[in-house]
Amino acid sequence: MTGPISSEPNRIILPRTGIGTDVHAFAPADELRELWVAGLHWPGEQGLSGHSDGDLVAHAACDALFSAAGIGDLGAHFGVDRPELKDASGADLLAEAARLVRAEGFEIGNIAVQMMGNRPKIGKRRAEAEQVLSEAAGAPVSVSGTTSDGLGFPGNNEGLFAVATALIYPVQESV
Amino acid sequence: MTGPISSEPNRIILPRTGIGTDVHAFAPADELRELWVAGLHWPGEQGLSGHSDGDLVAHAACDALFSAAGIGDLGAHFGVDRPELKDASGADLLAEAARLVRAEGFEIGNIAVQMMGNRPKIGKRRAEAEQVLSEAAGAPVSVSGTTSDGLGFPGNNEGLFAVATALIYPVQESV
Amino acid sequence: MTGPISSEPNRIILPRTGIGTDVHAFAPADELRELWVAGLHWPGEQGLSGHSDGDLVAHAACDALFSAAGIGDLGAHFGVDRPELKDASGADLLAEAARLVRAEGFEIGNIAVQMMGNRPKIGKRRAEAEQVLSEAAGAPVSVSGTTSDGLGFPGNNEGLFAVATALIYPVQESV
Repeated sequence: MTGPISSEPNRIILPRTGIGTDVHAFAPADELRELWVAGLHWPGEQGLSGHSDGDLVAHAACDALFSAAGIGDLGAHFGVDRPELKDASGADLLAEAARLVRAEGFEIGNIAVQMMGNRPKIGKRRAEAEQVLSEAAGAPVSVSGTTSDGLGFPGNNEGLFAVATALIYPVQESV
Repeated sequence: MTGPISSEPNRIILPRTGIGTDVHAFAPADELRELWVAGLHWPGEQGLSGHSDGDLVAHAACDALFSAAGIGDLGAHFGVDRPELKDASGADLLAEAARLVRAEGFEIGNIAVQMMGNRPKIGKRRAEAEQVLSEAAGAPVSVSGTTSDGLGFPGNNEGLFAVATALIYPVQESV
Repeated sequence: MTGPISSEPNRIILPRTGIGTDVHAFAPADELRELWVAGLHWPGEQGLSGHSDGDLVAHAACDALFSAAGIGDLGAHFGVDRPELKDASGADLLAEAARLVRAEGFEIGNIAVQMMGNRPKIGKRRAEAEQVLSEAAGAPVSVSGTTSDGLGFPGNNEGLFAVATALIYPVQESV
């Protein structure tokens, strides 16, 4: 059995913190792209540009996990040398990031992500997004949203920003 | 008695991490608004726009708490369906956010917020800001400031950006 | 002996979280400045402006530490009243920040930093950067990179953004 349990009495197993951010630009209006954000498809909304589905919420969550484990970032793991991930969804990538972090000997405490931008309205489908991403990560993922009060690229609808933090801990055998 | 104490020997109670951000634009120069940031009134400074007092530091702290607990965000809790909060200060909202998080069975470890922008100068009143916000949250809140080196909306004095992280933990009965 | 060990059976020592951000603008093209980012010299790249070496990755890590400990920020500690730090490198400042946090009775769990921008390419020298910064902090520092998909000041090569989180814990005597 493994888990956050110390084999030394009163020994604290210290978790590790990680941080991840991501930005994707909206695709041009005449380019028909589907919008995928926070593991969900948002029908009728303009999509994001990028080789992937542009799911910046899932990508920021991946980078927070990698960052906590100290094993690089999205570019290092999901680059051109892994063509099987070319069409992977944000949720697929998060599941793979979680697998990689566990393979390094960590368990995931939780992941928290916030999206900044005008659309989509995360609040309308928060429970759904959290379910999809939590299942992908095998750990609680909270998703929230805010706006930039009209300022910067999230304010003028050029793109979206996301920032995530994750807490992981080293797995040890129980006593 | 409750607290961060395990009822199982050597069982680790894992904290949860959360993240929150906020942006508010400065009000137009000809619109006389008072500036409220980090729970403090800053006399003689141009205020921020918004329906609330625009205290982005307090708002980011609220969202970090909600995010850690997985219970949504500022928009979900302090929206138009709670008119009694219409004129609530940033500190009032933080106190209410802390109450909601505790009602979910968590205690708050600490909250850390950083403001990015040219004015107000957080460093001049840091102790005061930390006291007001820590009293509101019932837990240590650290407040710091930095600039964006003249870049983006925090650099050209269009608005201010804040980012916060929070650590909370599930409350259990002691042995 | 000190460490993350509780003197009370089953008492959890709760870590504290901190957050730090930084932005530096690139120096004008006709101003020959060396680029220092993440504790490393990047030969042949345009440098960042600023009185210091402009190492925003190291600076964000410092602010995350200060923020976790609740002892202010870069401006408070490394301001003009400490002329001996005028030419300090980012790694030097991180070492000094770690010393100050330990002097307050904390030990450092880990620090995670992500840089957002087009250049330098963190991924190409990540292990080297992590070694330099981890040695400076006396604790694991993870460094990662991402881009802003061409948006904002990190996208148009005006400057770079970094965000860091840190986990620290109060040091107690062992049983």
